[in-house]
Amino acid sequence: MSALRPLFVVAGIGRAAGTGAAAARRFSKEGYSVALIARGEDSLKALSEDITKGGGEAAPYCIPSYSPDDIASAFTSISAQFPNSHYALRAALFNVGYAVWKPFLEVTAAEVQESLNTNVAAAFAFSRSAILKFKENNLNAENPKRGTLIFTGATASTRGNKMTSAFSIGKFGARALSQSLAKEFGKDGIHVAHAIIDGQIMTGTALERSRDQPLSGLSPESIAQAYMYLANQEKSAWTWELDLRPAQEQW
Amino acid sequence: MSALRPLFVVAGIGRAAGTGAAAARRFSKEGYSVALIARGEDSLKALSEDITKGGGEAAPYCIPSYSPDDIASAFTSISAQFPNSHYALRAALFNVGYAVWKPFLEVTAAEVQESLNTNVAAAFAFSRSAILKFKENNLNAENPKRGTLIFTGATASTRGNKMTSAFSIGKFGARALSQSLAKEFGKDGIHVAHAIIDGQIMTGTALERSRDQPLSGLSPESIAQAYMYLANQEKSAWTWELDLRPAQEQW
Amino acid sequence: MSALRPLFVVAGIGRAAGTGAAAARRFSKEGYSVALIARGEDSLKALSEDITKGGGEAAPYCIPSYSPDDIASAFTSISAQFPNSHYALRAALFNVGYAVWKPFLEVTAAEVQESLNTNVAAAFAFSRSAILKFKENNLNAENPKRGTLIFTGATASTRGNKMTSAFSIGKFGARALSQSLAKEFGKDGIHVAHAIIDGQIMTGTALERSRDQPLSGLSPESIAQAYMYLANQEKSAWTWELDLRPAQEQW
Amino acid sequence: MSALRPLFVVAGIGRAAGTGAAAARRFSKEGYSVALIARGEDSLKALSEDITKGGGEAAPYCIPSYSPDDIASAFTSISAQFPNSHYALRAALFNVGYAVWKPFLEVTAAEVQESLNTNVAAAFAFSRSAILKFKENNLNAENPKRGTLIFTGATASTRGNKMTSAFSIGKFGARALSQSLAKEFGKDGIHVAHAIIDGQIMTGTALERSRDQPLSGLSPESIAQAYMYLANQEKSAWTWELDLRPAQEQW
Repeated sequence: MSALRPLFVVAGIGRAAGTGAAAARRFSKEGYSVALIARGEDSLKALSEDITKGGGEAAPYCIPSYSPDDIASAFTSISAQFPNSHYALRAALFNVGYAVWKPFLEVTAAEVQESLNTNVAAAFAFSRSAILKFKENNLNAENPKRGTLIFTGATASTRGNKMTSAFSIGKFGARALSQSLAKEFGKDGIHVAHAIIDGQIMTGTALERSRDQPLSGLSPESIAQAYMYLANQEKSAWTWELDLRPAQEQW
Repeated sequence: MSALRPLFVVAGIGRAAGTGAAAARRFSKEGYSVALIARGEDSLKALSEDITKGGGEAAPYCIPSYSPDDIASAFTSISAQFPNSHYALRAALFNVGYAVWKPFLEVTAAEVQESLNTNVAAAFAFSRSAILKFKENNLNAENPKRGTLIFTGATASTRGNKMTSAFSIGKFGARALSQSLAKEFGKDGIHVAHAIIDGQIMTGTALERSRDQPLSGLSPESIAQAYMYLANQEKSAWTWELDLRPAQEQW
Repeated sequence: MSALRPLFVVAGIGRAAGTGAAAARRFSKEGYSVALIARGEDSLKALSEDITKGGGEAAPYCIPSYSPDDIASAFTSISAQFPNSHYALRAALFNVGYAVWKPFLEVTAAEVQESLNTNVAAAFAFSRSAILKFKENNLNAENPKRGTLIFTGATASTRGNKMTSAFSIGKFGARALSQSLAKEFGKDGIHVAHAIIDGQIMTGTALERSRDQPLSGLSPESIAQAYMYLANQEKSAWTWELDLRPAQEQW
Repeated sequence: MSALRPLFVVAGIGRAAGTGAAAARRFSKEGYSVALIARGEDSLKALSEDITKGGGEAAPYCIPSYSPDDIASAFTSISAQFPNSHYALRAALFNVGYAVWKPFLEVTAAEVQESLNTNVAAAFAFSRSAILKFKENNLNAENPKRGTLIFTGATASTRGNKMTSAFSIGKFGARALSQSLAKEFGKDGIHVAHAIIDGQIMTGTALERSRDQPLSGLSPESIAQAYMYLANQEKSAWTWELDLRPAQEQW
């Protein structure tokens, strides 16, 4: 039913100054209720309150880890708080990332595990919960698209470089997942997209400092604008993957 | 100066029922004047008049061929009709394509030449004229982006398949060009993007027939929406390449 | 010293009928001693004895799992049995794979974990041990190359498909690793390569059945020949990646 | 019939000091007769005589240009001199390249045309002649492979960079062609491969100078070794594409 309010779930908001937070604010502005999943309670609450104060609807879901169980629990809580009678999950963003730049021989087994858990296994679990929720939405003329699932990728999603062995194993994996999902669920009206962020994302003070000069990196708001575009793409022309980089980036 | 009216040049409008025409209409709706370059005079005039009747500003430039000289001539005429005193070229679309699907041994030398001329050499010449015009625009706070140059690509832009030897040599070439240009001119505020259209574009009667059922291909309007998004991307996050395909496409 | 006997370590030999076993036999024929790491004790012993009977030198290392610790332990045992005084590790093959083809929603969290552990974390640990051993080799005119580390990839290493979400997350990850390593260790004379096996590998009875007709898949011996070529590549022209598929494969 | 002598045709030998010449010598050493196609008569004759003096069989075919007609003529001459009664074309190398590194706006229309003609249209014509000749070979147990067609690619075959717009349009095109051909003719026992030479090829004096120190680039002989490996690949495991770069290359 078109009276249902659209819901946007985002996992990964860091210090509430980057891509996840900007996406939450942007989707809120466009009329979405927002469910925020992250590990850092303070940032989570601050962002949630900030959105609420601005007239939006937001709720924080602090989880101890990005384990499959914790992610599934968060979605259970979200479903309780945003019931199908009034809300429909329409967009989900997996913005979690564990980045590590190190010479290969200095990478520990724990870091490898953490990269795989956070970048891939968590993405898998998040996708599962999001897709199951999307499937609860009816397809009809007003809503030809059940929902959009977006992954924040990085340069390391398509290139393994010298210092990125531990990072790229995770980012390549999440990209593979996004492609499999795009192919499997497109016919069901579920749109899966992957954005390669090829450059430094400017957050907080870095962004502040550069206010009066050309940005040397990407502004989170510009990335959020791309995500909104993806969520709004018509069913006849969906994008699986796009790259985003600053105009002046060397690549 | 912000009082300058934005100009959009598109080359390649076929029977005025596909991507080029949809882009022209869309950019017109968003306030652009539109210069249309194509070989087919009738379609060209019909589209131009149609846009004008709808309250837009459009002008047709019929050229005998997509040779570098003919393309340069068209831009000279465009510059005369849309002088820098009142207009600024802000977006350009190379939508010309010569498609041929044939077993390799049946492809003639003339078809090879035509594919290279139309898909690549013409793209090169068009890019040259567009970039030289973009460079006449001033970069300032109001216009941090000189202009956006978009290429319409295809599945054959990234994969050589059995029946596509003659087609893919051209589409790969245009994609290479777009990447070189994106890297060279980004720092100058010129944005170059390449859209991989991975599916059948529905035009005219095909589109009409499918009105009451799910589209089996891409609607030109959806593609035009993507081009408008690209033209509007903020300088901190530009896309070089995105793919576009119908939700239900097998890929 | 050139009197050192070259050693080849291979992890992953399945039922001793596929790529790992074929590579072991081939490297043995070319004068390498062979250390075999796998989980299945029977196949491991059978292959080791078979190579020994044929006049080669081989030793089995049965490990309970492909955990980083078990892999490191195997290398410790190998170093003891094949001491630097008489042997030099010259080639290593990571041929371990955990393949799962399932619709996304049927994949369990355990399968995701197993794919990441076996396809990626184990590859990481194996690479670490192999590279540390390679580094013990001196670079000189006779041995301008310290060693070659090869990964067996698959179609799922570069494409996520409908049934391959759980598989491709692991194979993409291992490919990322191989590229990072190739870039980081090339200058140290360590060659890292990744082979995309794009087709069905014919083993055992399947191979037997097709003896008198064109193979519908890849013979393990042909793959082993590619690995030997990679190990023998001169330092001025190393391959990071090649694909291998049957002549008649549709792709 | 196995009594037929294998023939190798190579187009593009430059100053007889690079990849084409090294491949000709190598294939000659392995028992192939060699037909050399190029524009520079002196280098062509010198190489041909050199191979003949060394006990091989070689013949020069000087052509005025790499136009489709000139290439077809060369093959007609080759067929006359190496008749099917005694020879069978088993391998062909398209090693022609027109390289130009220039800022985009400095590239002339003539250079664009030359790049497309030499890198792509000539490759198309050469492939046609080679494949038609391959098709004259019988497929049987002794010769399960009709022939191998190899393309020398470059970094610019997969990446458009700042100074490579005119070069990469041609190299991308030839790569597209090679992929189409590999897919179309594999089932007919014709193997098509593309080698990405990612680094500087050391020729003549550069090679001489570096004799006593590590090569900073690729030696033509190493590349020739790769081509011989490709020509010898068994039908169950063919490579379409491999990259070749010096061990110490930054990439």
